[in-house]
Amino acid sequence: MMRTRPLKVALLGCGVVGSEVARIMTTHADDLEARIGAPVELAGIAVRRPGRVREGVPAELITTDATELVKRDDIDVVVEVIGGIEPARTLINTAFEHGASVVSANKALLAEHGTALHAAAVEHGVDLYYEAAVAGAIPLIRPLRESLAGDKVDRVLGIVNGTTNFILDRMDSSGAGYSEALDEATALGYAEADPTADVEGFDAAAKAAILAGIAFHTRVTISDVHREGITEVTAADIASARGMGCTVKLLAICERTPDGSAVTARVHPAMIPLTHPLASVREAYNAVFVEAAAAGRLMFYGPGAGGAPTASAVLGDLVAVCRNKVAGTTGPGESAYTRLPVSPMGEVVTRYHISLDVADKPGVLAQVALVFAEHGVSIDTVRQQGKDGDASLVVVTHRAPDAALSAVVEALRSLDTVRGVASIMRVEGE
Amino acid sequence: MMRTRPLKVALLGCGVVGSEVARIMTTHADDLEARIGAPVELAGIAVRRPGRVREGVPAELITTDATELVKRDDIDVVVEVIGGIEPARTLINTAFEHGASVVSANKALLAEHGTALHAAAVEHGVDLYYEAAVAGAIPLIRPLRESLAGDKVDRVLGIVNGTTNFILDRMDSSGAGYSEALDEATALGYAEADPTADVEGFDAAAKAAILAGIAFHTRVTISDVHREGITEVTAADIASARGMGCTVKLLAICERTPDGSAVTARVHPAMIPLTHPLASVREAYNAVFVEAAAAGRLMFYGPGAGGAPTASAVLGDLVAVCRNKVAGTTGPGESAYTRLPVSPMGEVVTRYHISLDVADKPGVLAQVALVFAEHGVSIDTVRQQGKDGDASLVVVTHRAPDAALSAVVEALRSLDTVRGVASIMRVEGE
Repeated sequence: MMRTRPLKVALLGCGVVGSEVARIMTTHADDLEARIGAPVELAGIAVRRPGRVREGVPAELITTDATELVKRDDIDVVVEVIGGIEPARTLINTAFEHGASVVSANKALLAEHGTALHAAAVEHGVDLYYEAAVAGAIPLIRPLRESLAGDKVDRVLGIVNGTTNFILDRMDSSGAGYSEALDEATALGYAEADPTADVEGFDAAAKAAILAGIAFHTRVTISDVHREGITEVTAADIASARGMGCTVKLLAICERTPDGSAVTARVHPAMIPLTHPLASVREAYNAVFVEAAAAGRLMFYGPGAGGAPTASAVLGDLVAVCRNKVAGTTGPGESAYTRLPVSPMGEVVTRYHISLDVADKPGVLAQVALVFAEHGVSIDTVRQQGKDGDASLVVVTHRAPDAALSAVVEALRSLDTVRGVASIMRVEGE
Repeated sequence: MMRTRPLKVALLGCGVVGSEVARIMTTHADDLEARIGAPVELAGIAVRRPGRVREGVPAELITTDATELVKRDDIDVVVEVIGGIEPARTLINTAFEHGASVVSANKALLAEHGTALHAAAVEHGVDLYYEAAVAGAIPLIRPLRESLAGDKVDRVLGIVNGTTNFILDRMDSSGAGYSEALDEATALGYAEADPTADVEGFDAAAKAAILAGIAFHTRVTISDVHREGITEVTAADIASARGMGCTVKLLAICERTPDGSAVTARVHPAMIPLTHPLASVREAYNAVFVEAAAAGRLMFYGPGAGGAPTASAVLGDLVAVCRNKVAGTTGPGESAYTRLPVSPMGEVVTRYHISLDVADKPGVLAQVALVFAEHGVSIDTVRQQGKDGDASLVVVTHRAPDAALSAVVEALRSLDTVRGVASIMRVEGE
């Protein structure tokens, strides 16, 4: 039952991802038609700078008027790969109003306005898909939303930013400091000229918000996500991690609270044991662990960014929304029925690795241990090393609320015998 | 827009997987209703032995008449977790005829009769989903069929049988022989009393057929899959693998031929480098690598079997087909439009690791090398070790058609100076 009128696609943005989408849509038109059950054609491409040469992209489709393009009533699907909040948000809403389904790779937008956009899609009877917004080509949104729809996800733990993983991996393998590793990442094209969104954890936090919402069937926005970047991670932190059989990764962690009454979402560097599968995720690769009640522990691994991988995810969604258009239906939308609140970071139960420079004299350990006890934080291990009148004390705690751990660190800083806090890092993945 | 009439589910089989499905359907009915958009209820459970106590399974739903159950016109979805060809096939066809969609975990049936079953589902306007048939809880069918629907999959390389992975892992970590490791697997419940389906590779071959068909949009049945089990793998093979920085895994490998005109599907033990992510898949875990043109290399990892993980996959499918029922539509069916033929094993391009016991005298290496040359097989490395008049020769070839490699082995066996072929194994994952 092939329909003859082709599905028409408007592409918003034609940078690294968009040009790859256009190229594959052109070169693999037959495959896409066979898989959708109807021909699909690129009807227009909105760009900001029409003069830039784009190899393999049909020049006659280029326009600078994105608004006019999404208002065309013959457009069935709008693919948005511009990024950022505006004008993407307005264009997507306009597309919905004109009956088009939308495929987006826009994590910032989805993490902030996901609920409103989903509602608008439902209102207009169209689809909003965004597999490419999280971890590039790695199927994550669809497995969480569909494959695990009959299960109870308890935890999502992942490396979802390639730039920071590349930097931390370099620091770990070469002993380089943060700046040096960042320079290398920039030189190799893994970091942007302004790396803030990546290294400060904004990119990962947006993805954490999206994953948490889908995993727990609730609403989580980027402002709910506790965020720490990697700019403070030192070569000494990495060396400390090595010393305890760990490596340092920037992790996005979404969990149910122990009593199940709330969820938490956070992004911060953490030590994970070298035996954990996430420890061996190298370079700019991404990987996400999902722990579910029935399924157990699943891992999804692959390239987390780049033009072609992201285009693969966009095109997978394009096929899905086109199939839905042909069938006259829509796919699963937002599922937020649990309405679980998001707890603040202080209530997250975690473990700290704390490295202190202390005076090398009797009674210091007792004094330090007392601080932990006063805050109800139980110590797992202490390692004490003396050198030339100074000493270092490395403490790894048992699990405790983050607020208590953080209060311990504050109290330690004010001790006379503690000359400095050399490194504080959470320990995860055990 | 909640509908009030509940969707009714018939469960065929109530063993390890079925009882877990029944339990979760009962305890998580509210979640399933919220995710589907309609209540779903278990309407009947067909079993062979009604007397067996099944914890958490409503006794009043038990029947021994599976045929009558699937013929009920109020049944919306039939979940088939009996396994085997008959009566599963007849029951599924009867379910289709009575308008029910089917969720199945039956790899043997799908690998043999997938095309006919898909056609029957289409004919009756219902769904046939079977995520649980391959690699338990690991989402694979849906990512291949939907997430990668806009990409071109070139290769699927996976560990898809937990029993054999457990056995090989034990042989590798403890130096045990095959029989000893099998006994341990049996004692721990990882191998069945009759382990033939697992250790001879039938189970993995069925999964390879299903994966190849979906990955390459063509039809592949289990009889198209070249199959070798692990019963011939020796402690010496494992030691040889270690010696070259590899481990031995039973791999399911589905590939396009180099010119793209055909596909191949095979299951056999192979050496893979310890640096390959599949090498670190331990115990009874499964993992599948997918290489796609745009997405690059993806890996999916998790528990490949067991009641709860398999139930997770079944329930994910159940939610999907129920959503489709509510929406009055069906999901993507069989996609076999490429009609690519399946090439025989002899045409697969692979590499061999061959370990020979030879006479320790001059000219042996030259004689052996000549055999390779005569068959057009190029040698990558040779390692020669002498001891007490005997010597061993370990040859690793470059890539060549399997038929040529296999002819080399035959020719080597007939050489006077070759006392025996101690080990032959393919080398993959490089």
